Amino acid sequence: MAAFEKIVPVRFEDCDPAGIVFYPRYFLMINRLVEDWFAEALDLPWRQMHAVEHSGVPTVRIEIDFRAASRHGEMLRLALDVVEVRRSAFSLNIWAEGVETRDIRFQARQTFVYVSTGGGEVKSKALPEDMAARMQAMIVGEEKTA
Amino acid sequence: MAAFEKIVPVRFEDCDPAGIVFYPRYFLMINRLVEDWFAEALDLPWRQMHAVEHSGVPTVRIEIDFRAASRHGEMLRLALDVVEVRRSAFSLNIWAEGVETRDIRFQARQTFVYVSTGGGEVKSKALPEDMAARMQAMIVGEEKTA
Amino acid sequence: MAAFEKIVPVRFEDCDPAGIVFYPRYFLMINRLVEDWFAEALDLPWRQMHAVEHSGVPTVRIEIDFRAASRHGEMLRLALDVVEVRRSAFSLNIWAEGVETRDIRFQARQTFVYVSTGGGEVKSKALPEDMAARMQAMIVGEEKTA
Amino acid sequence: MAAFEKIVPVRFEDCDPAGIVFYPRYFLMINRLVEDWFAEALDLPWRQMHAVEHSGVPTVRIEIDFRAASRHGEMLRLALDVVEVRRSAFSLNIWAEGVETRDIRFQARQTFVYVSTGGGEVKSKALPEDMAARMQAMIVGEEKTA
Repeated sequence: MAAFEKIVPVRFEDCDPAGIVFYPRYFLMINRLVEDWFAEALDLPWRQMHAVEHSGVPTVRIEIDFRAASRHGEMLRLALDVVEVRRSAFSLNIWAEGVETRDIRFQARQTFVYVSTGGGEVKSKALPEDMAARMQAMIVGEEKTA
Repeated sequence: MAAFEKIVPVRFEDCDPAGIVFYPRYFLMINRLVEDWFAEALDLPWRQMHAVEHSGVPTVRIEIDFRAASRHGEMLRLALDVVEVRRSAFSLNIWAEGVETRDIRFQARQTFVYVSTGGGEVKSKALPEDMAARMQAMIVGEEKTA
Repeated sequence: MAAFEKIVPVRFEDCDPAGIVFYPRYFLMINRLVEDWFAEALDLPWRQMHAVEHSGVPTVRIEIDFRAASRHGEMLRLALDVVEVRRSAFSLNIWAEGVETRDIRFQARQTFVYVSTGGGEVKSKALPEDMAARMQAMIVGEEKTA
Repeated sequence: MAAFEKIVPVRFEDCDPAGIVFYPRYFLMINRLVEDWFAEALDLPWRQMHAVEHSGVPTVRIEIDFRAASRHGEMLRLALDVVEVRRSAFSLNIWAEGVETRDIRFQARQTFVYVSTGGGEVKSKALPEDMAARMQAMIVGEEKTA
């Protein structure tokens, strides 16, 4: 089971003249998933993070394999797992599969860095302790000790 | 020198509430660069490829490192090099740098597959010989023999 | 009460460097609302309409007033009412209000035409009778006679 | 002759599964035209306006007629004329035509308001005098007196 998941439709706006998802649109789906994960699982809505705390989580690296085309009208299961948590960065596995067909559409490993955006500069900083702890607790196979 | 390059502005529409480029927008910049490369260097406009030849070049893999933030109003140099040409696939190095600052903003390796999109199915097929030859001739460091 | 409505979040991707919704994004919200209305209220999923029936409902006219800015993290209520149904066209009132504040963000009147897209041409045609009847039944204040 | 114009391609990313421009994309084309007009004709790059002067020109009203579909690969001429300049607002006629076919694709009247965005609030304010004067001088048919 994934640490977090959402089921989303492939919309008209996502599809190109060949009738399949235009790959840059997958990154919007990924971004929404991560935004929802922050709000619902980490208790840090991005509005709070950006507008109040002047912080952000820009992506610094993506490796992604697109395995199969997705078509207009399909339902996709988007899911993420935490892979690694470091001082000011974290890495996720993120993937999508067809809800009906259960086949993988894309499989990504994405690394984010926690930054301060105040004063017009983007500078990495340590993840807040409780956010790091919550992420750490979601790492697959992680042994948890009280 | 890159095999192909374009200078493009960072527009208002590209930027997020932190005032920097929202990373999914970079994939639109990449897609436009590759679309222009096909039309201007490979002599195969995508309109022809999609609407007439019912073919396409979906992306099957991307590795991308985002090195530095880009800001609204900056000019970026987007460039690509051919890295590898196989029977029905090709890989490009694609990167962006600030025109003024000359620093790298992202560095990507992207693999595309040549497919037939007719009949509602997406199926890989051999690259047309002259397209493969043109790509091959752009490979960096490739020795050319008459 | 509106004929159809959805509550949607203002996402990070919707917002510009001023931290408010970038107005072209409202048209994506509108498009999703109309896509959902077709699937859920008119029983004609757009996938079916486009890929199977080679038909579509392009927009031919919009009048829209943007009344107040929407901010990242807000929830918006998007709603539509049917205003007029003609032989091959229909007009909707579409608006958004803040879920918490109840103030109007935009108010639009949008006209769509029903077209055939087969054979590479876009040509208007009569609305299917049952679709027209369902739309007609949603017109506000419309007197219904058995 | 229009007060300002640009020729732009219809790109793959602009087109929907029917192979024609998805109408929300036209608003991105419009926004780029207005952004370029500010930088090139009014001498006020939006980066300067937003990041330095904490001002902006949100759209408050659009009336737009979509007259004909545009297809992937076409070149469009986007053009604007100034229609009216008021204390803190201005209205433009904005339209697109096919470069080859010369037929109108859309015809819009759009009203913008000049606002201050500092302090997290969006508040209208008087157009700077020289900006208003430049706009005024572009009004079609306007008599100019020294």
